[in-house]
Amino acid sequence: MRVAIAGVGLIGGSIGLALRELADTTTIAWDPDHEALDAALARGAIDKRADSLSEAVSQVEVCFVCAPVGQLRGVVSQALASAGDDCVVSDVGSTKAAIVAHTDDQRFIGGHPVAGAEGAGIAYADARLFDGAAWYLTPGKRSSGLLYERLHRLLVNMGASPVAIDAATHDRLLATVSHLPHVVANALVLQAADARSSEQDALVRVGPSFRDATRVAGANAAIWTDIYRTNAEAIAAEIDKLVDHLNGVAEALRGDDRDWIAGWQGSARRGRTQLLETELAGGALYELRVFVPNRPGVVAQIAVELGRAGVNIADMALAPASDMRSGAVSLWVAGADQAHRASERIERLGFTVASQDR
Amino acid sequence: MRVAIAGVGLIGGSIGLALRELADTTTIAWDPDHEALDAALARGAIDKRADSLSEAVSQVEVCFVCAPVGQLRGVVSQALASAGDDCVVSDVGSTKAAIVAHTDDQRFIGGHPVAGAEGAGIAYADARLFDGAAWYLTPGKRSSGLLYERLHRLLVNMGASPVAIDAATHDRLLATVSHLPHVVANALVLQAADARSSEQDALVRVGPSFRDATRVAGANAAIWTDIYRTNAEAIAAEIDKLVDHLNGVAEALRGDDRDWIAGWQGSARRGRTQLLETELAGGALYELRVFVPNRPGVVAQIAVELGRAGVNIADMALAPASDMRSGAVSLWVAGADQAHRASERIERLGFTVASQDR
Repeated sequence: MRVAIAGVGLIGGSIGLALRELADTTTIAWDPDHEALDAALARGAIDKRADSLSEAVSQVEVCFVCAPVGQLRGVVSQALASAGDDCVVSDVGSTKAAIVAHTDDQRFIGGHPVAGAEGAGIAYADARLFDGAAWYLTPGKRSSGLLYERLHRLLVNMGASPVAIDAATHDRLLATVSHLPHVVANALVLQAADARSSEQDALVRVGPSFRDATRVAGANAAIWTDIYRTNAEAIAAEIDKLVDHLNGVAEALRGDDRDWIAGWQGSARRGRTQLLETELAGGALYELRVFVPNRPGVVAQIAVELGRAGVNIADMALAPASDMRSGAVSLWVAGADQAHRASERIERLGFTVASQDR
Repeated sequence: MRVAIAGVGLIGGSIGLALRELADTTTIAWDPDHEALDAALARGAIDKRADSLSEAVSQVEVCFVCAPVGQLRGVVSQALASAGDDCVVSDVGSTKAAIVAHTDDQRFIGGHPVAGAEGAGIAYADARLFDGAAWYLTPGKRSSGLLYERLHRLLVNMGASPVAIDAATHDRLLATVSHLPHVVANALVLQAADARSSEQDALVRVGPSFRDATRVAGANAAIWTDIYRTNAEAIAAEIDKLVDHLNGVAEALRGDDRDWIAGWQGSARRGRTQLLETELAGGALYELRVFVPNRPGVVAQIAVELGRAGVNIADMALAPASDMRSGAVSLWVAGADQAHRASERIERLGFTVASQDR
């Protein structure tokens, strides 16, 4: 497999390092920052450097566009213009609706690995960055099943756990679990900084809990301004919800409502435990064999439906029939329960499923 | 020095472990939880166990009350009832106005180490927990200078950095840098948990930034309910400020105000850097010798004034005159700048200062 990486920062560099551990994979990278390319080569994160995006993309079967959200449209369009018919182009941007709305090319599948590090740039790249991490994929209605399968499998081989999701749901969820925490971290920092300028400096000492709570405050302004702007309405809606909640807390505090406060604190504990326990179902792998017409969008439709049903697709394989007008998708999922749920959902979409233990 | 510790959880146990490293210090502890006492003895965090609070306190020169905030009044009162005239009683509660208002005993000096760990209980106790940590002290108007000096010096020997502050300012600052982040962590978790119950579970995957931002969510409900209740008004006021700020962010997002968003993100970055850079001034130690009347509250008054001025008292010593009606306090501060500021402030209080390099 030949893979192009457009942009070798933290994510692009980590993709390169993760790919290096796979057999028969070569990477070619392009970055407008030539020093970053040199550094990526020096770290062994890529095999070759290209002089242009089109040079990189024209030679490969998979292209990851790792550009900042604000530049995605341009770079994705350029990549698609130079990519062959059999090349899947994906991105790693933190918001998805804007870029998915921008292109309905069947070779494009939006992506977003839920992974990060405190530092930016190739220096912080890590072959294990995606181990066990969710990697959202937002195929469009026309996305090629063959290309979806290829991308999904490559991500699984890199240690990630791909989850298909529609772009609007992705952006709404990320507003809740990522963008809102960033907004709040900024607000907490600015409020403390303000207190510091009105009180005597040395009195304001922040402890470890403040440090953790605000770790993401003021993350790269260029990148985050674009993330906020491309998901503005969803984030604003989450802010509204948070404001309502906070007003309720202030009211309970002013009313000295002991039971409410204690109950709220306890709920937060349980909520956090549950959120961090997003363990994927274990158990034996079941193969579901789905017979499908060979047209764009079918595999993506099934993947999105299973994502919505909470089914993790551990692996998948496409077997087109010789007439290329129909075929079978094999999906492997862990545990009888997930297999059952998956079959039900797929049949509800109108497809026939045969299932068996692997 | 003999020290009593009432309550051997995370903080009490860590005090014991830190004291064990000092020469000529013995510790005796009491805890209503006998298993915790056994565990503290087994870890070597204390030298002796007492069967009652009064037994522990009656034998010592310093007593740390490490009870939960909700039980502080009762335990501090009991400790003061059993303590000798020459014993300083302090506490480690996260809010200070309520307990300081409760007693004007000259032997009591409120305290609050800005330190913590993810776990609770003696098992997480750590001799280094207070290394370099701010330890707020809130002496009352009648607090004994002799006892203040003893406590200050003991904390310095334990590796902490004592900062005198009045109780109301303490609670206001802590509302900003600690209690509000706890409130917000709860709110973020509950909002995400809510999204999770309305979307399909498996779609909601939280990443490392969410984990960090909500580390303190749902901290021990019994302890935190009391912290919130004893600082309710200050926390509610901070919530109001945060709500105003968040409403401004939502407006900027909805108006797609690029410049505002980018400027705000940049300010947050600068704010966080400044807040985490609370480095204490370095440089040679200067001794300030202050001549004071030997009456309760004078030393505390000077310490609070220097805390307000951002002067860190690296060490202090009291030398009462033989008639016990006046004396000298020696204060050591780092750097000419701090020494100058300290002299000015102390002279403004009406005392005479002589200063020299150590």
